[in-house]
Amino acid sequence: MSTNQATVQKPEIVNGIEVDKVMSIINNINTDANNGKWQFRSTNQWTGATRNQSVFKDYFANDGENFTHPNPFVVEADEPFLLGGTSNAANPVEYLLHALTSCLTTSLVAHAAVRGITVEDIKTSTEGEIDVRGFLGISKDVRKGFQAIRINMKVKSEATAKQLKELALFSPVYDTVSNSLPVDLIIEKY
Amino acid sequence: MSTNQATVQKPEIVNGIEVDKVMSIINNINTDANNGKWQFRSTNQWTGATRNQSVFKDYFANDGENFTHPNPFVVEADEPFLLGGTSNAANPVEYLLHALTSCLTTSLVAHAAVRGITVEDIKTSTEGEIDVRGFLGISKDVRKGFQAIRINMKVKSEATAKQLKELALFSPVYDTVSNSLPVDLIIEKY
Repeated sequence: MSTNQATVQKPEIVNGIEVDKVMSIINNINTDANNGKWQFRSTNQWTGATRNQSVFKDYFANDGENFTHPNPFVVEADEPFLLGGTSNAANPVEYLLHALTSCLTTSLVAHAAVRGITVEDIKTSTEGEIDVRGFLGISKDVRKGFQAIRINMKVKSEATAKQLKELALFSPVYDTVSNSLPVDLIIEKY
Repeated sequence: MSTNQATVQKPEIVNGIEVDKVMSIINNINTDANNGKWQFRSTNQWTGATRNQSVFKDYFANDGENFTHPNPFVVEADEPFLLGGTSNAANPVEYLLHALTSCLTTSLVAHAAVRGITVEDIKTSTEGEIDVRGFLGISKDVRKGFQAIRINMKVKSEATAKQLKELALFSPVYDTVSNSLPVDLIIEKY
């Protein structure tokens, strides 16, 4: 291969992901570990009854550098009719299942890409069991949250199921839920 | 008040929520504790690169009774450009912040409603700190998930901040994240 051919080489794309882009983030953090400090954030407005709306406008990367999303992402929440809601959007526990499943999927695909492992398809079923006696305050002995979450991913790939699971388990949401994170809640009146 | 007036009484609505509806769920579970066993679920399809889509079609309540949403809720996920994504939707960790914040909001409003406590407004700011060295596999000593989540709710209500916090803390997502839930992940090749 001539030098000229090497210099006009296209970025390597694996699983649709430009591996060069991901490697440049990694190199940036290898240069200065503080560049790994990121912050995601939202604002949320109650919109009446069981409805509310979150807006994601920007985030910090590289220890405080502000990055603005091309358009703010607006995400609605509601509750089903059965829970006294208006059933216009998924409810909060459904969004938790989405956060978990989508994070495992993206983690698997991206970590496969940087290792040159091809993934052709991923289809996932997710189930969360909850005893609503906890949430409704009927029983103090029943936990308020999910009692079990089962995620079943079907993956078409050259890698083994064991390798694929190792890649998926880089997921930040999986870690946050599985290993707990005390959430700091402050309520102020205005 | 005449008997006639009492029988044509409208359902009591507090904070936009029909309290009768919520009370009927509670009564239904008080009749048989098994009616508290619910299941929420999704399917997810990877749609290329850093994108995927969850669909919420139905759920179980009352120990296996199937309830279908009026329309399936479709929720997209993507990653920002900086993480090698196409920035078409919020990313999984942002959806986790939405799940937490929306759940605290709805829990506060609904539990206030059944207690006859009026809430006029709720505005929330949420921040999640993450050191992406964990997710990217740069350091094994750094946790992959959030290291801290701060949620600041500003509430206009007749109740005290302490009372309002007690109501918000019925939140299932807050409990799931704060107190950990081992997630059962199965990966199968197909």
